[in-house]
Amino acid sequence: MSETPENPVRVWRNVRLATFAPGLAGLGAVEKGALAIRDGRIAFAGAEADLPAAALRGAETIDGEGRWITPGLIDCHTHLVWAGDRAHEFELRLRGASYEEVARAGGGIVSSVGALRRASEDELVRQTLPRLDALVAEGVTTLEVKSGYGLDLPSERKALRAARRLAELRPVSIRTTFLGAHALPPEAGGDKDRYIAEVADTMLPALAADHLVDAVDAFCEGIAFSPGQVARVFDRARSLGLPVKLHADQLSNLGGAALAARYDALSADHLEHTDEAGAAAMARSGTVAVLLPGAYYFIRETKLPPVELFRRHGVPMAVATDANPGTSPLTSLLLATNMAATLFRLTVDECLAGVTREAARALGILSEVGTLEPGKRADLAVWSVERPAELVYRMGFNPLHARIRAVS
Amino acid sequence: MSETPENPVRVWRNVRLATFAPGLAGLGAVEKGALAIRDGRIAFAGAEADLPAAALRGAETIDGEGRWITPGLIDCHTHLVWAGDRAHEFELRLRGASYEEVARAGGGIVSSVGALRRASEDELVRQTLPRLDALVAEGVTTLEVKSGYGLDLPSERKALRAARRLAELRPVSIRTTFLGAHALPPEAGGDKDRYIAEVADTMLPALAADHLVDAVDAFCEGIAFSPGQVARVFDRARSLGLPVKLHADQLSNLGGAALAARYDALSADHLEHTDEAGAAAMARSGTVAVLLPGAYYFIRETKLPPVELFRRHGVPMAVATDANPGTSPLTSLLLATNMAATLFRLTVDECLAGVTREAARALGILSEVGTLEPGKRADLAVWSVERPAELVYRMGFNPLHARIRAVS
Ligand SMILES: [Zn+2]
Ligand SMILES: [Zn+2]
Repeated sequence: MSETPENPVRVWRNVRLATFAPGLAGLGAVEKGALAIRDGRIAFAGAEADLPAAALRGAETIDGEGRWITPGLIDCHTHLVWAGDRAHEFELRLRGASYEEVARAGGGIVSSVGALRRASEDELVRQTLPRLDALVAEGVTTLEVKSGYGLDLPSERKALRAARRLAELRPVSIRTTFLGAHALPPEAGGDKDRYIAEVADTMLPALAADHLVDAVDAFCEGIAFSPGQVARVFDRARSLGLPVKLHADQLSNLGGAALAARYDALSADHLEHTDEAGAAAMARSGTVAVLLPGAYYFIRETKLPPVELFRRHGVPMAVATDANPGTSPLTSLLLATNMAATLFRLTVDECLAGVTREAARALGILSEVGTLEPGKRADLAVWSVERPAELVYRMGFNPLHARIRAVS
Repeated sequence: MSETPENPVRVWRNVRLATFAPGLAGLGAVEKGALAIRDGRIAFAGAEADLPAAALRGAETIDGEGRWITPGLIDCHTHLVWAGDRAHEFELRLRGASYEEVARAGGGIVSSVGALRRASEDELVRQTLPRLDALVAEGVTTLEVKSGYGLDLPSERKALRAARRLAELRPVSIRTTFLGAHALPPEAGGDKDRYIAEVADTMLPALAADHLVDAVDAFCEGIAFSPGQVARVFDRARSLGLPVKLHADQLSNLGGAALAARYDALSADHLEHTDEAGAAAMARSGTVAVLLPGAYYFIRETKLPPVELFRRHGVPMAVATDANPGTSPLTSLLLATNMAATLFRLTVDECLAGVTREAARALGILSEVGTLEPGKRADLAVWSVERPAELVYRMGFNPLHARIRAVS
């Protein structure tokens, strides 16, 4: 009761809440609920019967007609700022073209690097907005955006600045992640160590000084960078006081999960090839497992992430789109939850916690958003559904009734 | 030139056309194209340079800014009119519930039958409209709707009447299909032959007399009806002059494709277990293979339909949502094309022909819609894409710029 406001601005009555509050099981559901918002914060979230009379004085009251309210959705892993697309490459592959033929036709990540380098910051923003709008239309109020198609200082800066500008143009919060260690740029001549030194010693400090980096990511894989090279970048991040996360164990097990855990990473992402030691290490460090079923589906991966291990060891699981032009051109977070359920067998509760509470945890912002608890930012999604399971079960359908984002 | 009108009402210039016209390869693409509409019909579709000067006299001219125009999309296999949903069943299954537990909790097709029987016609329409709106928002101008959750005469009539009403409430064309032979109703006491007699001798003639039946469908499967029972229904359809189609070879090979071909079926649908003899028979009868990757994905089927056999024998392939509450709660035809490409390895051209020309063929309306050819109904979709492959490649994104439907 002590958190209850005296003059809430707005009260939703006759709603059902999926609070995801820590002490409650599953969705933390509250039937016959009410939610009060004051000064852009949640002032009350609970049973309508417990709503203090004072909360209603002078308040704007909205009849929710039994609709469900969840925290605003959070997409905690995207590469949303890109230029061009890779539809032609997709088309060629379906016609049976080999990787060499695709590369000769200008495909592969190098094509995204070229397109991003050629685009102006304005052009990048312009191309990104329709994708952002698709996410926002589904109730997303916070998303992470990675760089990693620039691969040189000016281009990485341009991408991160474009990401920051998204939050000025649309009512969303953006968390930026520097992913200089995404791939080796063509001009590096195959010298990964030298490029990693540039990422760690030049690019990262410069971009951090520009306040463009909320977290630091790397791609640990045979086709990308070794654990030792990743550690070089992570050491620098640590010295700058920046949290890290890792593209880990997607195509093979290089011990990425354990490496991430060693640096107390916010998250380790993909994880199809993670083993029990990796899961146990993540549990100890509180590192979130970010599952990306869109990429699994799109590249027709067959190795499933070890969901049962994560459950057994108590590793929190988030779900994200991995929106990117090469391996997951997916801009529906609801569809990502359906894939997480259908393909990875996450339960409905895990899927929905995965795009709210656990996604917030994966971004290190759980104290601010991700649950319906007094004091948190009033970032909310109101759904025209009879039960939250519909959000996961349906495919290609958007039952969002209203999206509320804290403005103060 | 002879098809060119003298006074077209509207001319789209500076567009690119995916005509799907018979004589042309692949998409039948026309760069630097133009399209003229008069009296709700396509009056011209071709190179802008070939547009007769007379066609522009007094015409409203629209600059398409290089956008792509395709035929309006056609979803040729849906069960869109249903009541309630099966999200709870989905949730229980993910928690590991057995089929018995799901059935005890009121799941399975019997729950959809109960919900539909309890709903009024108005209520059915009300529940269906949001799903229809999702399809329409993606450029669908024609869709098929099956009955099959009523399973008694008044309930099947109610469902088909609700389907017809959709076309009065939204700017779409609806083709109705009577699927009385979908499942055995609970009151039949296990007597499939007696129920099939009722379907063939009572329900079908009565509904046909009400002009509620554009085609007749059946579910040929061990868990549904035998080839002999299906033939009983198809014989009646033939005597009434109605075309047939079949849910064939989805879970096992009962020779459904060949059975459909024997009745010159418009289409045979699903076909995961169809063999070469079935494909050859379909080719001879001109029966379209309707592929339903949403159901394949949702029920985690692993047997792929024999796409290579269909290609080799020249069986036309369509792609549809199979929108239904039990095995494909999918209301995005674009996503269905992505699944057809990603999971079934259809090419982009096959996917897009599959939701236009071949879908029209599967509904027996190719002379009216499905391609951009003079004389056809001006049902069009205008897309903000650089190349048509984007429509298939992206997931959870709708680049529709405008949807045009013939009104006369
Ligand atoms: Zn990624
Ligand atoms: Zn069906």
